Amino acid sequence: MKLLIIGAAGMIGRKLSLRLAREGRLSGRAIGGAHLVDIVTPPPMNAPFPIAREAFDIAAPYVAPKLAALRAEVIFLLASVVSGEAEADFDKGYAINLGGTQALFESIRREHLLSGGAYRPRLIFTSSIAVFGAPFPEAIGDDFLAAPLTSYGTQKAICELLLGDYSRRGFLDGIGLRLPTICVRPGAPNRAASGFFSGIIREPLSGKEAILPVGEEVRHWHASPRSAVGFLLRAAEIDTSQLGARRTLNLPGVSATVGEQIEALRQAAGEKAAGLIRRERDETIARIVAGWPSNFDPARAKALGFRADADFSAIIRAYLEDDFEQ
Amino acid sequence: MKLLIIGAAGMIGRKLSLRLAREGRLSGRAIGGAHLVDIVTPPPMNAPFPIAREAFDIAAPYVAPKLAALRAEVIFLLASVVSGEAEADFDKGYAINLGGTQALFESIRREHLLSGGAYRPRLIFTSSIAVFGAPFPEAIGDDFLAAPLTSYGTQKAICELLLGDYSRRGFLDGIGLRLPTICVRPGAPNRAASGFFSGIIREPLSGKEAILPVGEEVRHWHASPRSAVGFLLRAAEIDTSQLGARRTLNLPGVSATVGEQIEALRQAAGEKAAGLIRRERDETIARIVAGWPSNFDPARAKALGFRADADFSAIIRAYLEDDFEQ
Repeated sequence: MKLLIIGAAGMIGRKLSLRLAREGRLSGRAIGGAHLVDIVTPPPMNAPFPIAREAFDIAAPYVAPKLAALRAEVIFLLASVVSGEAEADFDKGYAINLGGTQALFESIRREHLLSGGAYRPRLIFTSSIAVFGAPFPEAIGDDFLAAPLTSYGTQKAICELLLGDYSRRGFLDGIGLRLPTICVRPGAPNRAASGFFSGIIREPLSGKEAILPVGEEVRHWHASPRSAVGFLLRAAEIDTSQLGARRTLNLPGVSATVGEQIEALRQAAGEKAAGLIRRERDETIARIVAGWPSNFDPARAKALGFRADADFSAIIRAYLEDDFEQ
Repeated sequence: MKLLIIGAAGMIGRKLSLRLAREGRLSGRAIGGAHLVDIVTPPPMNAPFPIAREAFDIAAPYVAPKLAALRAEVIFLLASVVSGEAEADFDKGYAINLGGTQALFESIRREHLLSGGAYRPRLIFTSSIAVFGAPFPEAIGDDFLAAPLTSYGTQKAICELLLGDYSRRGFLDGIGLRLPTICVRPGAPNRAASGFFSGIIREPLSGKEAILPVGEEVRHWHASPRSAVGFLLRAAEIDTSQLGARRTLNLPGVSATVGEQIEALRQAAGEKAAGLIRRERDETIARIVAGWPSNFDPARAKALGFRADADFSAIIRAYLEDDFEQ
């Protein structure tokens, strides 16, 4: 089985690649080769199968036909401009998050037609809970409408619709995953408006100060990177006929307030760590985050075997085990 | 005030143009000129303001910049490949229904930026109840999710999302209208899968046979062309700040079964007319129609002053008064 991972140099893409390289198998089958692609060349890694690594901008018109021509049987489409950047740079957000995805789907369709219908890859698309916009119910159910309040959320919601139609027409076998906010993100902050949810845990654990731009009462929906990789692997192996026409899933996660996050940090690392969080309100971030959902009832995904972290303390433990470097 | 009507040669576009020409005013202001555009040149008409008529394919890349450069203050975007054709011709449906709309929005955004933010037209976009897909509640509420089961419905749902984001960003002042199926359509049948809903009334009223491809128990959601024009005029004049972030409305209409349609025909034109309906099941049409919604609770649109026909007999009366030619 041949794999293509688009967005392989990103945090989740790297963890997914490493996990696949370690296991050598996906959906019970041996991996025959993997093509790792991102805007920068993904880092090298050891694997029991050949790995090709390349740098491409998926918004450039020659790229999608080239990637689709690889005829990978499983494609992970993780590449995205993050929410804060998509809001700040309208053109770039649409070109990459919508244009790049649409071009890839269309190129896959051409390969499907060229193959006489034989080529129909499993395509795992990472969407986001940013497709939802306030007002919200107490917990968002599987049938809640996508009414985004950001350009990023709009782009993701549009890609979900395309994924559904291209799957219904049989051009590809798509599954969309509305990932919770990934927390704790290791490494340097990115430009996502949600970055502080990780920063207020990661930085104090390393003895550094972190900025909290919103109030402690803000509730949000989290999953660890480890859970996110588990979601992607599960999406590659499930029988998609169980999805019916609605190809995108709300995923399980942990609903926690910023206050509860800080309490979990205090239990894991003590009062001194919690004291490193500096309150500095940012109205732009507060406004974006206020439009995001905070709690879900992801019954479909749970029934399909998607599993999340038990609570926010488990999320901190996953970070300490997988990513923490003193 | 300058108007641009894209899709002005279509049935609704012609009726809207004639109504505006007759009244000479829109939203309480005198119309200074109208630009009528379609894939074929719209027919001439007398009006108290200058009218320009042109043929363009909105999927051609030079067209959207040209139309946006007119800087019309009110734009009606009615142009569409119909549902049956969008399902049969995937490329054409996406190129026109999605590509054409997206190019127009983007060109309007360029004009907005060029004008230093001053140009921000009211844009009335005709969407469709085909954005919804089964399973449905008893009556679809204003917060029901868009989960289309056709390419046409997917394209409309995507345009609604773009309309919402371009409006939120202030590039245009958009309002989307999910039109009920328009019934009774005058003239020749088009390629819409919903065409028979009109055919079984229009053809027998003219003494001709009509084919019914589905069962009499099929329930559907209708509005007369007269109501549709009323919706468009109302959309041009309302205060869009009342819409909030959700810029697209479910519209009022008449929920009727095919059996109830036939009974209304019988009351209007007698048993002989009703006898001209020939049952000839078409599985493709039956499958498409089965995925469409049949009943709504359009509370938001009603509160905003959108008004539909009283019942299916009123829809037949509107046809007899406005369009019937013996």
